[in-house]
Amino acid sequence: MNQSGVLFRITTFGESHGGGVGVVIDGCPPGLLLVEADIQPDLDRRRPGQSRLTTQRQEADQCRILSGTFEGRTLGTPIAVLVENADARGRDYEPFKELFRPSHADFTYEAKYGIRNWKGGGRASARETIGRVAAGAVARKILTTSLGIDIVAWVDQIGDICAAVDPETVSQEEVESSLVRCPDTRTSPGMVDAVDQARMDGDSLGGIIGVVARNVPPGLGEPVFGKLDGDLAQAYMSLPAAKGFEIGSGFSGVTTRGSTHNDPFRLQDGQIRTTTNHSGGIQGGISNGESIRARIAFKPTATILKPMPTVSRTGEETTLNARGRHDPCVLPRAVVICEAAMALTLVDHYLRHRGQTGREPQNFPLQQR
Amino acid sequence: MNQSGVLFRITTFGESHGGGVGVVIDGCPPGLLLVEADIQPDLDRRRPGQSRLTTQRQEADQCRILSGTFEGRTLGTPIAVLVENADARGRDYEPFKELFRPSHADFTYEAKYGIRNWKGGGRASARETIGRVAAGAVARKILTTSLGIDIVAWVDQIGDICAAVDPETVSQEEVESSLVRCPDTRTSPGMVDAVDQARMDGDSLGGIIGVVARNVPPGLGEPVFGKLDGDLAQAYMSLPAAKGFEIGSGFSGVTTRGSTHNDPFRLQDGQIRTTTNHSGGIQGGISNGESIRARIAFKPTATILKPMPTVSRTGEETTLNARGRHDPCVLPRAVVICEAAMALTLVDHYLRHRGQTGREPQNFPLQQR
Amino acid sequence: MNQSGVLFRITTFGESHGGGVGVVIDGCPPGLLLVEADIQPDLDRRRPGQSRLTTQRQEADQCRILSGTFEGRTLGTPIAVLVENADARGRDYEPFKELFRPSHADFTYEAKYGIRNWKGGGRASARETIGRVAAGAVARKILTTSLGIDIVAWVDQIGDICAAVDPETVSQEEVESSLVRCPDTRTSPGMVDAVDQARMDGDSLGGIIGVVARNVPPGLGEPVFGKLDGDLAQAYMSLPAAKGFEIGSGFSGVTTRGSTHNDPFRLQDGQIRTTTNHSGGIQGGISNGESIRARIAFKPTATILKPMPTVSRTGEETTLNARGRHDPCVLPRAVVICEAAMALTLVDHYLRHRGQTGREPQNFPLQQR
Amino acid sequence: MNQSGVLFRITTFGESHGGGVGVVIDGCPPGLLLVEADIQPDLDRRRPGQSRLTTQRQEADQCRILSGTFEGRTLGTPIAVLVENADARGRDYEPFKELFRPSHADFTYEAKYGIRNWKGGGRASARETIGRVAAGAVARKILTTSLGIDIVAWVDQIGDICAAVDPETVSQEEVESSLVRCPDTRTSPGMVDAVDQARMDGDSLGGIIGVVARNVPPGLGEPVFGKLDGDLAQAYMSLPAAKGFEIGSGFSGVTTRGSTHNDPFRLQDGQIRTTTNHSGGIQGGISNGESIRARIAFKPTATILKPMPTVSRTGEETTLNARGRHDPCVLPRAVVICEAAMALTLVDHYLRHRGQTGREPQNFPLQQR
Repeated sequence: MNQSGVLFRITTFGESHGGGVGVVIDGCPPGLLLVEADIQPDLDRRRPGQSRLTTQRQEADQCRILSGTFEGRTLGTPIAVLVENADARGRDYEPFKELFRPSHADFTYEAKYGIRNWKGGGRASARETIGRVAAGAVARKILTTSLGIDIVAWVDQIGDICAAVDPETVSQEEVESSLVRCPDTRTSPGMVDAVDQARMDGDSLGGIIGVVARNVPPGLGEPVFGKLDGDLAQAYMSLPAAKGFEIGSGFSGVTTRGSTHNDPFRLQDGQIRTTTNHSGGIQGGISNGESIRARIAFKPTATILKPMPTVSRTGEETTLNARGRHDPCVLPRAVVICEAAMALTLVDHYLRHRGQTGREPQNFPLQQR
Repeated sequence: MNQSGVLFRITTFGESHGGGVGVVIDGCPPGLLLVEADIQPDLDRRRPGQSRLTTQRQEADQCRILSGTFEGRTLGTPIAVLVENADARGRDYEPFKELFRPSHADFTYEAKYGIRNWKGGGRASARETIGRVAAGAVARKILTTSLGIDIVAWVDQIGDICAAVDPETVSQEEVESSLVRCPDTRTSPGMVDAVDQARMDGDSLGGIIGVVARNVPPGLGEPVFGKLDGDLAQAYMSLPAAKGFEIGSGFSGVTTRGSTHNDPFRLQDGQIRTTTNHSGGIQGGISNGESIRARIAFKPTATILKPMPTVSRTGEETTLNARGRHDPCVLPRAVVICEAAMALTLVDHYLRHRGQTGREPQNFPLQQR
Repeated sequence: MNQSGVLFRITTFGESHGGGVGVVIDGCPPGLLLVEADIQPDLDRRRPGQSRLTTQRQEADQCRILSGTFEGRTLGTPIAVLVENADARGRDYEPFKELFRPSHADFTYEAKYGIRNWKGGGRASARETIGRVAAGAVARKILTTSLGIDIVAWVDQIGDICAAVDPETVSQEEVESSLVRCPDTRTSPGMVDAVDQARMDGDSLGGIIGVVARNVPPGLGEPVFGKLDGDLAQAYMSLPAAKGFEIGSGFSGVTTRGSTHNDPFRLQDGQIRTTTNHSGGIQGGISNGESIRARIAFKPTATILKPMPTVSRTGEETTLNARGRHDPCVLPRAVVICEAAMALTLVDHYLRHRGQTGREPQNFPLQQR
Repeated sequence: MNQSGVLFRITTFGESHGGGVGVVIDGCPPGLLLVEADIQPDLDRRRPGQSRLTTQRQEADQCRILSGTFEGRTLGTPIAVLVENADARGRDYEPFKELFRPSHADFTYEAKYGIRNWKGGGRASARETIGRVAAGAVARKILTTSLGIDIVAWVDQIGDICAAVDPETVSQEEVESSLVRCPDTRTSPGMVDAVDQARMDGDSLGGIIGVVARNVPPGLGEPVFGKLDGDLAQAYMSLPAAKGFEIGSGFSGVTTRGSTHNDPFRLQDGQIRTTTNHSGGIQGGISNGESIRARIAFKPTATILKPMPTVSRTGEETTLNARGRHDPCVLPRAVVICEAAMALTLVDHYLRHRGQTGREPQNFPLQQR
């Protein structure tokens, strides 16, 4: 099941080692201005080798639009985007051919399929997310152009270092100005040090990404298996290394009482708004006009250089000694992926909303008394 | 989008006030012994009025199988299950007709659809979960019969009271023996008191449900938009009041390092197993043979008896004074719903696995050296 | 797979003998006026026992809307419609319990599922189409209200008796005024005689239904697996007893040459129209603004009263001697089913068009020179 | 909607003029031997320029597998196949930039999307079928390997010249030995002459393709929107230029009576078989173990060199004078496409059958008396 979406449907393909990775976007509205330059910046934010904090695998990750556009505009037909694999050192993985790397997908893929591409992470590699990022760039362009929606993600926590970020004001510029993509300038340097230390230790760190979508109109999302928070949860929990998802108050909200957790309504500038946003912009699975706020927990990267006990395909207990390139912390590169996941989920619901209701989403029109 | 699943597809229908609620199960394997008595016990665990801790709305919630079975066995054709609505006091909601109850779906439904059933929560009511629970009972029967899978959910936290529960050993009997469905006998009484207190205060509490699926074979789940944890996240985050989801180590895992978080492999009883289970039974989106462990955060019930600031449909700021029946804490009733969500997700992947691979899921067959 | 549609999704359920049959409509636009009386007339046109030419099974086929409406309007939530089974003489089928009726689905269902409901046709019974007809009535109401689309089906041929009907002018009133639902008054009496004769002979007849959708705007349908003619073909070929489908010139067009088959464009009343309609209103899978014209071939009813060679479940060659009630010719009752299939296909594409393009379908706006 | 299939899902992409065309196959079983050489022969049978009877556009149509295989075997992950466009003379189409070619999709695409790729047929070009043929080759390999299914298509009629072909015995070798792919050696030369004549006249011809799948086990197909004949109808009617579809007796069966049309059962070699096959191998939407027989009507190619009345985008009535390369008759090249459509439909149902029932399809096991 490598498809997602109902009207804006994406199909991603590709392993970390093989001909390439990419995506087919089916259902993109026609007439949108779209060239490779609309997609490449997000791929550049995702690609490996962009800083000393990320894996040193070198991939230019240049994308090519194979179909679905004409004279720089979308046709309404499927948009295929391909990124060919270049720096694929399959030989590096030779020692793992017969071993299962702990907390990787080696064992589960082989248990399921009876075969795996042992030259790298295969389909379970984070390289798969290239397709999502490419499609996410298209989705974001639609959302910005049509609805003025603004999506920003950032590193909110690395290890036990927590940032203080205001979702209502944080900008992509602030995020990008930090090597670890944490816009809290008091916290960011400590995170950089922590990642450097983990790298030197041959170990890895996890963390939390925060993401916000601002200026989302009320009405996106559908009961009951198309709830916006349900679909966001799937989009995020299908990312490599994701272990947790929360919307609005999330896990911390469970210790409050209803009288403080409920978001009271008020009238502001002629619009019905809430005074707090514990709901994270979603009530009953449908956006309410407030900012959509989510957080995603990522485990420490499974690839480390420390020896790990494991078992071979023949059942021999042994020790894995990994070498080579790895991300000591995936969080900085995951930021753009998390923005893509938000954009893809929202755009599909935007088109579905237009389809079912026959109108653009809009602010609530006050009834005449 | 009121459907879920690829091969074992469920469609739920119904509002809290109207003819009834129910589900159509499409794709259920043929030949399964199935009568109403297989479904009713789970509905009874979910129904309102079962104890003083739950809403006093009285609904027998008797189900009726309308199709898809013959002489007590499933036909392979759609199984429609209907529960008629009985104790629906629509008049109780008359005062809310023109008001939006804070943190309910009143506002968002009306913003999206331009209309809502104001006699109760409509489609956003927890009553909608009846369909999922009914289908979940069927799913669970398949999983138990075919694979010996055992699913248990329990109340893990209410407000700030946390239980200590061992997912490997907890039994449904232990859960059911507690009024709040918390199997930790040292914690359970305090939870009961807290819920009683919230009810007397006209307020509400949130909490966390833990759920485990034991004896799940490796191989269930698919890359990349059919990852088992991604689908579980959607199943759980589409439940009313759910605000967070985590699998395995979840949010607490982010403060560890890879060297301690990775689950080393070992050989146990001739099977490849892991010595820890931070992965929560899923690696790369596919089950690895360990217990699947998840936790779901539920916000405090939005319905409270305390006055809340709100706005009317005409934009007038006012105060909502709710009366009547409500659940001060949904957690005890949510336990069976969380079991159903796990069963429904697993059974669909079980059938998909058989379809794509042509075999039953099984333990990893060690290769000959 | 008992679902159909992308945005306007229907799920039908029910066997001929059992609790009932029905449909869940998911994705219906909100705010549509809808009560049982909007659906019942089409069910009445479909129901058995309505004339001496149809089976004498008596079913009132009264429908009940269980969900999805409020105060006579649709909510945007799933609309469940139930018709309970009444006159189900299961005992009549006792002799067939161990036999496979030729050209019925008895054998194939049992081969596939290892079980079948032998009390009647089960899921393969034409009774299943009740759900489609109910949903079709809703679909038709949307199409009429929003786009002014007009759908008419009629009996175009029974046995070797062919009618001459003008798809551009035929009306439902003309169709309904004929006992066999053939609006060609010169042909209709002969068809009635033929059906009467077949009934007296204990035999059955096949025929062809013609269907037209008028006033369809250009733009409905999608490349390539969502082509309007492809989806119509599936809708029609999934009807019981359907053996052939053609659009526009269909099979008779194969003997023409391109120079005569192509539909030249012209300008008419400021609109781009075609001078002929061999395309049947669809080019490249998308409606072109001309009437959509299709024809569906139905085989003679499999149920006859003449003895037929067959085999038992134990492999014994024997003779089937059917008794009881049957339709000597399904065509008259199939008319309303064929209208429903057209309406259901069009409405789904209508909503999809709105979703992908963000606008209502419209006539081609001539470009400024 | 450029996807098809439930478990074996294909997504095709690409316009006739642009980067390329291709397919992503999602859900292919793992472990299948698969290299480009398994796909190329079918692409070669489809490609233009293969004989004097087809368009002289020269395309090598070399395919490249980008993902989803490893060391010559399928991984169970998405298989992306790309064919780059080469001989694309976009300039040839310059005169049509402002005109709508009659009975092409120019007008409908522009009416729907407000934009079209006027350099060729765009997405409506028969070039789109490359993706289906590539995926069809994979599907066929699975069916042959796992079930021994044998699929053959042939030209059954061109214009008014009808062949006499026995579906039970016709072989691909016989089909390929004819320039028009008609295995009836008495008819084939006349067809060649007719196509030659049409080409010299600057005109075009239509015809009928016959297709058979032999050795199909009983049990493939599902009620009611997954009926095998319904899905075949969609697969075939979504092909460019298809105007009609029939299964078994099809349109000719409507003039028979039930007593002659019904296929009596008998016992043959210990298997339950039918003595005739008017059903075309499908009863109640499910295969019955007999050969699946279908016929598809194709209209005469819309592209002709004779002048045709048309209208420009600005609404000016004018004459279209086409030049250049075209197929005077698509039938010979459509043969392999029709085989692919059959294979794709069957393989998806094969996997679904395994998923829902948990077993391979098999002959009916006679019950013990």
